[in-house]
Amino acid sequence: MVRAYAATRPGGALTQTEVALAPLGDDDVEVVVEHCGICHSDLSMLRNDWGSTTYPLVPGHEVIGTVVARGAHVDALRVGQRVGVGWYSRSCMHCRDCLGGDQHLCAEAQSIIVGRHGGFAERLRVHWAWATPLPDGLDPSTAGPLFCGGITVFNPLVMTQQCPTGRVGVIGIGGLGHLAVQFAAAWGCEVVAFTSSLDKTEEIRNLGAHRVVDSRDPGALRHMARSLDLIISTVNVPLPWDHYLAALRPNGRLHLVGAVLEPIPTPAFALIGGQKAITGSPLGSPATVMDMLEFAARHHIAPVVERYPMSEVNRALAHLESGQARYRILLDADF
Amino acid sequence: MVRAYAATRPGGALTQTEVALAPLGDDDVEVVVEHCGICHSDLSMLRNDWGSTTYPLVPGHEVIGTVVARGAHVDALRVGQRVGVGWYSRSCMHCRDCLGGDQHLCAEAQSIIVGRHGGFAERLRVHWAWATPLPDGLDPSTAGPLFCGGITVFNPLVMTQQCPTGRVGVIGIGGLGHLAVQFAAAWGCEVVAFTSSLDKTEEIRNLGAHRVVDSRDPGALRHMARSLDLIISTVNVPLPWDHYLAALRPNGRLHLVGAVLEPIPTPAFALIGGQKAITGSPLGSPATVMDMLEFAARHHIAPVVERYPMSEVNRALAHLESGQARYRILLDADF
Repeated sequence: MVRAYAATRPGGALTQTEVALAPLGDDDVEVVVEHCGICHSDLSMLRNDWGSTTYPLVPGHEVIGTVVARGAHVDALRVGQRVGVGWYSRSCMHCRDCLGGDQHLCAEAQSIIVGRHGGFAERLRVHWAWATPLPDGLDPSTAGPLFCGGITVFNPLVMTQQCPTGRVGVIGIGGLGHLAVQFAAAWGCEVVAFTSSLDKTEEIRNLGAHRVVDSRDPGALRHMARSLDLIISTVNVPLPWDHYLAALRPNGRLHLVGAVLEPIPTPAFALIGGQKAITGSPLGSPATVMDMLEFAARHHIAPVVERYPMSEVNRALAHLESGQARYRILLDADF
Repeated sequence: MVRAYAATRPGGALTQTEVALAPLGDDDVEVVVEHCGICHSDLSMLRNDWGSTTYPLVPGHEVIGTVVARGAHVDALRVGQRVGVGWYSRSCMHCRDCLGGDQHLCAEAQSIIVGRHGGFAERLRVHWAWATPLPDGLDPSTAGPLFCGGITVFNPLVMTQQCPTGRVGVIGIGGLGHLAVQFAAAWGCEVVAFTSSLDKTEEIRNLGAHRVVDSRDPGALRHMARSLDLIISTVNVPLPWDHYLAALRPNGRLHLVGAVLEPIPTPAFALIGGQKAITGSPLGSPATVMDMLEFAARHHIAPVVERYPMSEVNRALAHLESGQARYRILLDADF
């Protein structure tokens, strides 16, 4: 049994409790949690927005911790090694997608917080492939959010093979978006940030954006017509999608990582004429996580965090829900 | 003045008339029309479905003919050369898209049948870059439909760099789809044809499809889940898009070339989970047309046509409208 913060019903407060760890499988490692970021999808899971939550729910999937035990078949990690853990807890490792390096697209991939418990806990267990060692030069005390928010916005740059000569837009400059701006700027691209919080403008520029556009101003959006190669949408609310599709250059791509529930009405003509795309992706593969960590270390990219002791998790969640977090909330384990 | 078949009002019959040729620009060639395919977009333009038709309208944009005159700056073509002409009549040739080889995506690109007259005529004039010489080994008497229907379904294979190990679905086995099946099969892919006309099954297999699926059978569509890398939709009516998105493998792409007017309701989750894409494209660039013609010649790919003399164009249009054409209608000029 380990101490953990769990909700027992949809939308309920988290209370400290004891939960049983899943058995340590031959391919699993056990990790002592040191820090854990809070992602908006922790809120969605708490409220059962997606219908996949089982209670008691222990959220948390942006974990930094240290390996304290490993299963019989684990060669890749050693006890004492510091690792990060994100959304996934395992995948089958033998299907075409896993063997092809797309383990995150495996039909059998499992979350760390669906049917098992996540990082708001003393310890967790996870398949070794989903616990990634931190490279030198990366600060463990802030790296947690890279493992969900970070990889979610880094993966689109990799999977689209974004050319550094291109222009990248980022919609929503929050937990994901503020990392997307940093990654895209370090990637060499011109970066345009779309935000409804213009009071963040100076900060967003300091993160690397070359331009900040008021996302609530239809005129400003129209002015962006035919200007961007890739737009990464990190928000989960409906947007004036027609304006963003028009803001794409020929061959441009509107890429969704924000889990907006309302279907996007997509006019075929808006895609056909300019050879455009609407695409999406979830997090990324373990290999892409490795590349992201090295890239972040090389370019001194780090989440901008507000810290809470894990014992104040409910206050932290309320702050996230208020929309005022700048830019990611991080819990420090204090069991 | 040249003789031509023109409509004077939306949906009206074509009548033979005389129309003035646009002046022969320095970069233009004049082409005597020998054959011209009929595309469904000729019908759409006749009915002014897209709001861009000007009357009198002379349709026709799948032309095979011979160069009989050229402007002062034309070096690429010579008088007497046999060429094909498709949807486009010109592009600016100096913007980033034109210089980058994507002349068909130029913001100034113009159609051969919008504001000027098309191939249901004795002669037409067109910018030299949009009149492509036929390679040896390609039968001029059937090649016309390659210049719109053909390039429209060939371009997706090029622009997506489709791997020949992949599985390609084609929705709608008509003028475009019967060419898509041939191209995808010659490309080396496994080809699945989705059709509502199961009486075509044997013919579609002979075109190269490895499997023919009844597009009106929801169970058959569900059975295709997670099986295709690329689906090319050639139809212009709403489909059970959720089934087709589910039929994609991870990293799969639903590619629209059929100009369906009703927006496609696109659930973000359907794209995010499997890293999928909805994309579109119009025809293709002159360089891709050249590649297509050589590919078609090498693989003995040709449109399957039903022939009418151009003087029977109204009968031919009625046959197209009936949905019974197998698979492309071709007019032979008989002025």
